[in-house]
This record gives sequence, structure tokens and C-alpha cells, in this order.
Amino acid sequence: MKKTMRNVALMALMCVAQLGYAQQALWGNNSIKSPVVNADKTVTFALRAPEAQKVQVGGECINGNVADMQKDEKGVWTYTTQPLESELYLYNFIVDGVRISDPSTTYTIRDTGSMFSYFIVTGGKGDYYLPQKGLRGNVSKVWYDSPTAGMKRRMTVYTPAGYEQGKQKYPVFYLLHGMGGDEDAWGELGRATQIIDNLIAQGKAEPMILVMPNGNISQEAAPGYTFEGLKVPTTALPHTMDGMYEAAFPEIMGYVESNYRVKKDAQHRAVAGLSMGGFHSLYISANNPDKFNFIGLFSAAIGRFSKDKNEYGYIYEDVYGKLDNMFAKHPGIYYYIGIGKDDFLYKDNCEFREKLAALAHHPGEYKYTETEGGHIWRNWRIYLTEFAQKLFK
Amino acid sequence: MKKTMRNVALMALMCVAQLGYAQQALWGNNSIKSPVVNADKTVTFALRAPEAQKVQVGGECINGNVADMQKDEKGVWTYTTQPLESELYLYNFIVDGVRISDPSTTYTIRDTGSMFSYFIVTGGKGDYYLPQKGLRGNVSKVWYDSPTAGMKRRMTVYTPAGYEQGKQKYPVFYLLHGMGGDEDAWGELGRATQIIDNLIAQGKAEPMILVMPNGNISQEAAPGYTFEGLKVPTTALPHTMDGMYEAAFPEIMGYVESNYRVKKDAQHRAVAGLSMGGFHSLYISANNPDKFNFIGLFSAAIGRFSKDKNEYGYIYEDVYGKLDNMFAKHPGIYYYIGIGKDDFLYKDNCEFREKLAALAHHPGEYKYTETEGGHIWRNWRIYLTEFAQKLFK
Repeated sequence: MKKTMRNVALMALMCVAQLGYAQQALWGNNSIKSPVVNADKTVTFALRAPEAQKVQVGGECINGNVADMQKDEKGVWTYTTQPLESELYLYNFIVDGVRISDPSTTYTIRDTGSMFSYFIVTGGKGDYYLPQKGLRGNVSKVWYDSPTAGMKRRMTVYTPAGYEQGKQKYPVFYLLHGMGGDEDAWGELGRATQIIDNLIAQGKAEPMILVMPNGNISQEAAPGYTFEGLKVPTTALPHTMDGMYEAAFPEIMGYVESNYRVKKDAQHRAVAGLSMGGFHSLYISANNPDKFNFIGLFSAAIGRFSKDKNEYGYIYEDVYGKLDNMFAKHPGIYYYIGIGKDDFLYKDNCEFREKLAALAHHPGEYKYTETEGGHIWRNWRIYLTEFAQKLFK
Repeated sequence: MKKTMRNVALMALMCVAQLGYAQQALWGNNSIKSPVVNADKTVTFALRAPEAQKVQVGGECINGNVADMQKDEKGVWTYTTQPLESELYLYNFIVDGVRISDPSTTYTIRDTGSMFSYFIVTGGKGDYYLPQKGLRGNVSKVWYDSPTAGMKRRMTVYTPAGYEQGKQKYPVFYLLHGMGGDEDAWGELGRATQIIDNLIAQGKAEPMILVMPNGNISQEAAPGYTFEGLKVPTTALPHTMDGMYEAAFPEIMGYVESNYRVKKDAQHRAVAGLSMGGFHSLYISANNPDKFNFIGLFSAAIGRFSKDKNEYGYIYEDVYGKLDNMFAKHPGIYYYIGIGKDDFLYKDNCEFREKLAALAHHPGEYKYTETEGGHIWRNWRIYLTEFAQKLFK
């Protein structure tokens, strides 16, 4: 099977399309179907690698995380999982020690500096993570001006189906990523637009504008979209948790409120985030006590602020005083905390909840969700699905 | 190097970030830097694969398209190219016969059903394919209604920097993909938003709205964005070249003209496309003779319409009569044809040019560009860069 590396594939395909041949042979590995979700919800992985000595598959869908694949007489290696619950799963193959994406699928996701193949098992919450029949919203990558950062910065904005055609104003949900993420993370790993589309289509969530900014304020945009060239993605970025981003957050809100038809009161504004983004959400809301009636901390990195002092240190000062003041003035606030039982931040979140409980004033509605597992996207998708249904009601 | 497959990478990274450790070891292959563009414009590829028997690199940047990589004592395989001209290059590794993306880079592009790693050599036309300093436009994935197709369909719309803040109207450029492509193809493989951003920033192109629709009218959207689940991308789609898409094209223009601030005359409207998209552009313009003063055929699949008769067959009838009529009525039309010397459509394009030359009436300005190579994205990026500078002037 000769791979036509000159990108003449289109030419070849057009020829075969004319002649009526099957085109699969031209696409390298595409005569292999992988992954295949079977009727019994097991999943079969396959890789043609007659010359490889050892092929494994790794991922949380595998018992023990890594399993050896078995080679058949044609040199095709396969492995079938146990039945899997409905979910989105990441995986990789390991071919003679080299971790690779599955060459038989184009469904890959970047998580900071690593690429994973993925698939979705339907029939449960995984259905929220796939486009379904029904109207879907538009998704834009837009540049807003950040005088604090001294640059234009990129964010992702979802507008619900019908936004362009209508005249009404919508509530806004600001959804923040974690360390190593960027303005693309919630849309890709987090399936946020699919979740919100599906919840709205089913009448379970209010039509809303969903804003997914970039929380790394030293960075213009996701890697590849900055003028720094094709940089290697990294978590080693300055100013992620030193108050600068939270202090500059009104610039994001200002752009959204100037450029979209939005309702501008606290009852129609939500902020939530995962890990670093949960940390950001905590301090953004506490420092803007009149702005958000819906606040969500998903596996939040409570108290993990930078120890370096700078002009933005005030953001982190007296947070419990600020929270008490916010709840006192706005008794209707809905406060959501989600954490996995195995999360390395579990204890920190327990302590935070104790301190919340000790405040003189409390949120109008308080929701604590504890899930299995640790600091993982599966949990953040669950929290988002749960939280989004409570918003603006 | 144990790969943390449970997606706990973020957790781990947050820990190491706190502790100040280098995080690379956690990311699988990231202690290897690959690809590296060297000062002399050679490029070095590297892959850690101590257990592999044979590792190759393939791509058009390699003399002969495929080269063996050499293993060092640490099990790292490397290969360095000859000096490369400024360009975007796709490549893959072949590890014991398995074609893979480079696990040390996250810069990958899908071409129909195959994934490629890529890099850009700067210092020439490759600079157009990277974000540069200066204002950049917003990019949206929007759903428009196609009564002809009986569904909502997705397209990509670029609005130039300043669009949101201003009030003026803009010209519109409809840019169409080839067989196997979709509404994502020009933005990814074609680098269209970078090219247009950079040309506008340099004053070489007029600020414009760039519309990149999906030309597969049986399809809602690119794979993964439809309600058919995570389908394997394919070129085997019905109704791609039977007239239905061209007949329905006014639905796309209607959406754009209803939802964006656009100038609605022929002098401010352009249509161009590659391969099947060039074919579409030819028939869309010929059948709408009052609509487009700027028409570009990039390696156009001249005359490759489906032989099946259907109600849209009129689209392809009497094309030379239609063209003669269009040029007679609109003597200012700018007509662009680009083709590679090795393109399998070269002869068809020569014949088309002869027939154009035999018409009683001709375009006001006619541009024929012949480039090296065949039916490849390198050429389409070159044609786009050239064509876009002529628009709306």
C-alpha cells in the first residue's frame, strides 16, 4: 500500500471516483476500521502493523490503562474492551514503544502538548457530547482588545440557534479552562458547544451565549494562532494565577456586552471553570460581587495562587470577607462546587466548603457534586452538563 | 516514561508547576523536539523509538518522498532534509511499516481521511501562512438554511479586523473546496484566513468577508459536526458534481447578504475554488452572469460533472454560450485560471482556455498562472495569494 505523500490524494481520489473504484486503498490505513463500537458497547481497536514487535492500546477505557493487542496472520493487531459506559474516551496506541494516535481515525484531540484519538459510546451521557438532530448554534473565534495585557486576545463565542435571526437579548455564561488549556479546550475536550446545543434543544437549558476565553493572559491565543509561530504548547506560562487575568476579566465582559445582544444583569450572567478556571471563577466573582448570580467551581484549584507579589495581589486578599459580602448583598446566588473523590484538590475543596459553611451569609442555592475519579475531563463534562441546566432560572 | 493515560496530565502538570519541575517528562515524547527548522532552512525530524526496527519519514520535503531515519545510541531516530524553500510542508513517520503523525508536535492537519503533521519554513511565501503581527479577523462556523438540501448546513465565515467595530459594508469572496474537503479545508490546509489577514495587513488586499461553504450538498457539515456521529471522512458522497450544489448556491449568498454588512453588486463579489470547487465556481458564475466580477479556477476539474441526469442538469448545459453572454454583458470581469504543469487536469484546462479564446467575448482581464507540480495544496495557496490581491480593485 504505497502512500501518496505529495498530497496528490485528491487527484487520485477524483480519478477513482470517476472510475468507480473503492478509494480506501489510497488512504494508508483506512481498510482497517478502528475504533469500532460494537453492539454490546465493547470497543474494538485495530492496527495493521505486520512488522511491529509489540502493539498496545492505552486509555481509561482499558482495564489497567494499558493492554497488549493481539496480532493475526495478516499482521493486524486488535484488542476489544469490556462493555463501556456511555462516555467520550481518549486513547493511544503504543507501537514498539512509540505512543501514537490511531492512524485509522481522524478524530483526535489536543490536550496541551499531547494528541489523543477519541471515540464516543452513545446511549447515555455520551449523547450530550455528539451533535444531535435539532438546531445548533454558531461558534466564533473572535479577537478582543486587552489593554491590561497590551494585546488583542482570542476567545471562543457560541451563540445559540436563532441568535442571528432574532432580536431578543440572551444571558451569558463565561466558561474558563484549566492550566495547559486555552480558548479551544472547552470546545474540544469539554464538548461544551455540543452539551449546550443539546441541552437547549431538549428544553433543559435556557438559550444562552457561551463565552470561552483564553485564561493565559501572557498569551494572545491558542498555539498556532499567535504571531509566535508554531510554538510547542506548554503549561509554563507566566501570570496565570497572579491576579492579572482576574483583574482584566472586565475587558472580556466589555467586549461581549458591546458586540452581542446580551442581558447585562447578574441574574443573566454566569461564570464557571475547571481547575485553574475554577480558581479564576472564584476570584472573578468574589471581586465583582454584583456581576454573577451563577458561579461554578469544577475541581477548582482553590488557593493555588502564585506567591509572587505584584500589583494584582489585591485580587486574592480577604476572599472570605469578599464572599460573605457578596452573599449578603445578593442572597439569590447559585453556587456550584464539583469535585472528584480522587482529585488531588479534593482536600482543598473540602476545606473551602468548610470555610464557606462558616460564613455569616450563604448562597441562595448551593450545590455540591462529588463524582468518581480524579482531575479529569469526564468529570468536567458532567459538571458542565449539570450546572448549565440550573442557569438563568 | 510512564504515560498517564487517565487524562490526569493536568493534575500532574499543576503539581509540577507548583513544585517548579520541568514538565516535559510527563508528555510522552516531548523531550524530543521535532520538527526543528534549522538556521540554514534544513529541517531535522526526530523520534524516540529504541525498540523500532525501521523508521522512515515521508513527505514532499524529502527527496524521493521517503527517507530512512538513522538511529543513535539512545534510540532516537533522526533525519535532516536538504535546505527547503519557504512553504508549509506535510509529513508522516513510518514506524515499522505504520504511518503515523509525529508524536512530538501537535500541529496536525486532516486531509479527508488522513492526518498529517506539518511545519512551516519562514522567510518567503510561508510567512503568509502564519499569523503575523497586526490585526486579525474573526472566524465563525455558522449554520445556514438550505431548502434545496432540506437541512441546515455549516460554513466558515471570516470577517476582517475592524468589522465588528465599524459600520461600512464589505466585499465578499466565496472560496470553494475540492472533493474530499469541507468547510474546514481552506482554513486548515489552505491557510486562507492567515493569507487574507496578512494580505490585508500589508495593504495588498482589500478588507473583505471570506466565505468558505461546504460544497458537499448531501452533507450537513464536516465530519464530527453532523448528527451522523463520528463518521469516517470520505470522498464517496452523492450530488457533489450533479448541479444541485450550484443550483442551491444562492441560498449561501442569501444567508451572507442577510447576516453580514456586505456590498451586493458584482464588483464586490468574487468566487473561486480548487479542483471540484473550481468546477463549482465556473458553473456558479456562468449560471449567475450578473453576480461575480472576479472568478478564479484553481486546478479546476473542468467538465467532470456527473453523467447522471437529474433536474439540475441545466446547470451544465451550453456553458460556452453562458460564458460568452456573461462576458458580453459584463466586460469588466476578471478571470483567473491557475494550474500545475503536472496536474492530471492540465490538459482539460488547456482545452478550456482554447474554448475561452474562441469565444466572441472575453473577460476584461484574464490571468493564467502555470506553476510547478501537480494537484496539490501548495499550488492552491499560491493561487489564492495571487488571486486575492486582484479582488475588488
